[in-house]
Amino acid sequence: MARANESFMRLSSGYLFPEIARRTKIWQEKHPDAKIMRLGIGNTTEALPPVLVDAMKHKLDLLSDRKTYTGYGDEQGDTELRKALSEYYRKHYGVSVPVSDFFVSDGAKSDAANIQEIFSADSIIAVQDPAYPVYVDSNVAGGHSGCFDNVSGRYAGIVYMAGNAENGFVPVPPSGHVDLIYLCFPNNPTGAVATKKQLKAFVDYAIAEKAVIIFDAAYSEYIETEGIPHTIYEIEGAERCAIEISSFSKSAGFTGVRLGWSIVPETLEVENAPAGTIHRLWNRRQTTFFNGASNIAQAGGLAALGDEGHQACLSLVDYYKGNARIIKEGLESIGLRCYGGTDSPYIWAECRNGMTSWEFFDFLLDKAHVVVTPGSGFGVAGEGYVRVSAYGHREDVEAAVASIKEHIND
Amino acid sequence: MARANESFMRLSSGYLFPEIARRTKIWQEKHPDAKIMRLGIGNTTEALPPVLVDAMKHKLDLLSDRKTYTGYGDEQGDTELRKALSEYYRKHYGVSVPVSDFFVSDGAKSDAANIQEIFSADSIIAVQDPAYPVYVDSNVAGGHSGCFDNVSGRYAGIVYMAGNAENGFVPVPPSGHVDLIYLCFPNNPTGAVATKKQLKAFVDYAIAEKAVIIFDAAYSEYIETEGIPHTIYEIEGAERCAIEISSFSKSAGFTGVRLGWSIVPETLEVENAPAGTIHRLWNRRQTTFFNGASNIAQAGGLAALGDEGHQACLSLVDYYKGNARIIKEGLESIGLRCYGGTDSPYIWAECRNGMTSWEFFDFLLDKAHVVVTPGSGFGVAGEGYVRVSAYGHREDVEAAVASIKEHIND
Repeated sequence: MARANESFMRLSSGYLFPEIARRTKIWQEKHPDAKIMRLGIGNTTEALPPVLVDAMKHKLDLLSDRKTYTGYGDEQGDTELRKALSEYYRKHYGVSVPVSDFFVSDGAKSDAANIQEIFSADSIIAVQDPAYPVYVDSNVAGGHSGCFDNVSGRYAGIVYMAGNAENGFVPVPPSGHVDLIYLCFPNNPTGAVATKKQLKAFVDYAIAEKAVIIFDAAYSEYIETEGIPHTIYEIEGAERCAIEISSFSKSAGFTGVRLGWSIVPETLEVENAPAGTIHRLWNRRQTTFFNGASNIAQAGGLAALGDEGHQACLSLVDYYKGNARIIKEGLESIGLRCYGGTDSPYIWAECRNGMTSWEFFDFLLDKAHVVVTPGSGFGVAGEGYVRVSAYGHREDVEAAVASIKEHIND
Repeated sequence: MARANESFMRLSSGYLFPEIARRTKIWQEKHPDAKIMRLGIGNTTEALPPVLVDAMKHKLDLLSDRKTYTGYGDEQGDTELRKALSEYYRKHYGVSVPVSDFFVSDGAKSDAANIQEIFSADSIIAVQDPAYPVYVDSNVAGGHSGCFDNVSGRYAGIVYMAGNAENGFVPVPPSGHVDLIYLCFPNNPTGAVATKKQLKAFVDYAIAEKAVIIFDAAYSEYIETEGIPHTIYEIEGAERCAIEISSFSKSAGFTGVRLGWSIVPETLEVENAPAGTIHRLWNRRQTTFFNGASNIAQAGGLAALGDEGHQACLSLVDYYKGNARIIKEGLESIGLRCYGGTDSPYIWAECRNGMTSWEFFDFLLDKAHVVVTPGSGFGVAGEGYVRVSAYGHREDVEAAVASIKEHIND
């Protein structure tokens, strides 16, 4: 009598993107000649840099010759790539992270979802609201929550740290005790970044409460404002209380190629086991549940960390940031209040005339033929906002912004 | 006060391959001039077929052009690849599996480890003994077992189905009730295959007990004996009670490229939820914890299923099977009793003169300079055997076998 996992069955259905697709499809059927413009999805659109493609083709050449062919690599990632990541952190961020603290993965989503597995089932979880849905969903599936409450729109047992205009979408640490704190800066969906002082407050909290911070830095290459930390390890004490997750997806265009990494310091402390235990359990998790990232993708990642590759990635990031500027300036020019969009590919725009997120979504679709993402889909605190994504071809972004500007008063 | 997951801490340390490495290293240090020959690891060694390399390079060309670039794909896998898998099962195995039942992954190891997550925490697990360690380890980490018992060498709460010379290393279904049954045929490590009748007994058991079979078919392309099922779905009723996991690793040489698939039928039944629930939970698991396999690897996989690619993969498999024949004939010629090696890349050899697995390991290393894998590392029932792997260059396999033959009476 096999039985399905009750925790998994607690997950409310993934509502947001299917619902966007459903409404868009219905609208398109009613307006078959209209060209819908999409600023909804955080998905890269520009070509892979040639230097990364060449590196991956070279790897394929090596795999084509029995003298240079290799099969399984280390589950933790190729040593050369881990060394290059450590060197990258030293050179570009000024922090020292040991090579052995890096774990190469098939992307930040997997790591963000899997990391909860190595913590005790009764862990209390804190998340930003609004937030990337994977933090909550993975913890619900992992049994770290109560049931979903349709009235509040939240899961029992999870602590939601609300972002809003007053705190600039950077919440302060919880007032009560929690065990795991998920932070994402530059933030998806709000585009907010946290200062050293704001992050220091979380690190201090974590050390005092023996909590662990899961820091999602997937968009760190988009930071341009002087003094904003690119990694949690710029904060003193973070090596005792913080795990970092990051990715090649949004800097190297690897959303489909799949490559990311986690940093789980040997020095991380927990209550019920010696220092080093969490590092050791993550190593055990990755070597048991995973067989390493694709060796082709890893060759591309190594190239992305070299001088030429790094420059190519920065150009790619600049392109999307150019889009973000166009969106932000365009929306602000018609009186919409915008957040993010400077150190981030996401613009978080307040809905017009007090509309709800879905009302503004419908309005923009119907009048401007532009698809955005309703903020309420990222959490209760996202109500009243929409996320506008800078991922798109320049000409499409320009056309979408022009259409919004033209039709905002329809 | 974050705490480490107690279930993960129950895992006994991964003893087998580190211990092999340790003994080999010590021996090499004592004999610095000796050339050690390795028949230990199940890791492919031959070049990728050109037709697969060309397909992956073509995909890289598409990703190099913004007009044909694509980012995130469907987490369940590219539709074309899922269609090709379904067609492959129809054409080569004569079974009809709906396209939507296929989930493309980064390899069979991930699926084999992750699948337990969607079943209830109190599930009773049955595994073959000896077995690939991931089935047990993932279930221990997932909280589906009691503690490890150093005396018995087994975990409390797990049902071990022993393979031995009498049953040809194909056990019969458990006498009592279990919820999940892991089966692997062609088997790693014993090389045994199961007949239709033997598999039918498990399917009948699973239907009667409302249990679920997890069928690992990663080596199915190695089957040559007429009438041996390549997939569990050749057995009537399996679509109601069986999940299948498989891989491009051992047929296409994708151990490092990373690509596999699972089949979780919509028609699978469990006790506490309607039919379709397990399929739906696996879909939810894959879309929440995973972001799709590398699009480059998927392009290679699609090519491997085409006519030309399939022929190239069969040639690769034939090469390793040629190695297996050389090993099996060589070992049998000196009086070692061998199993497997016909429909499998693994030869399961009885130790000489009643030696234990580790004694025979040490003997072969010391006398013949050949590394094999001690059978006891795969479970208590593996004691008294070693696994000899056919993955290697032909000339190296021949040299290793010649050395064993020369030194077996030292």
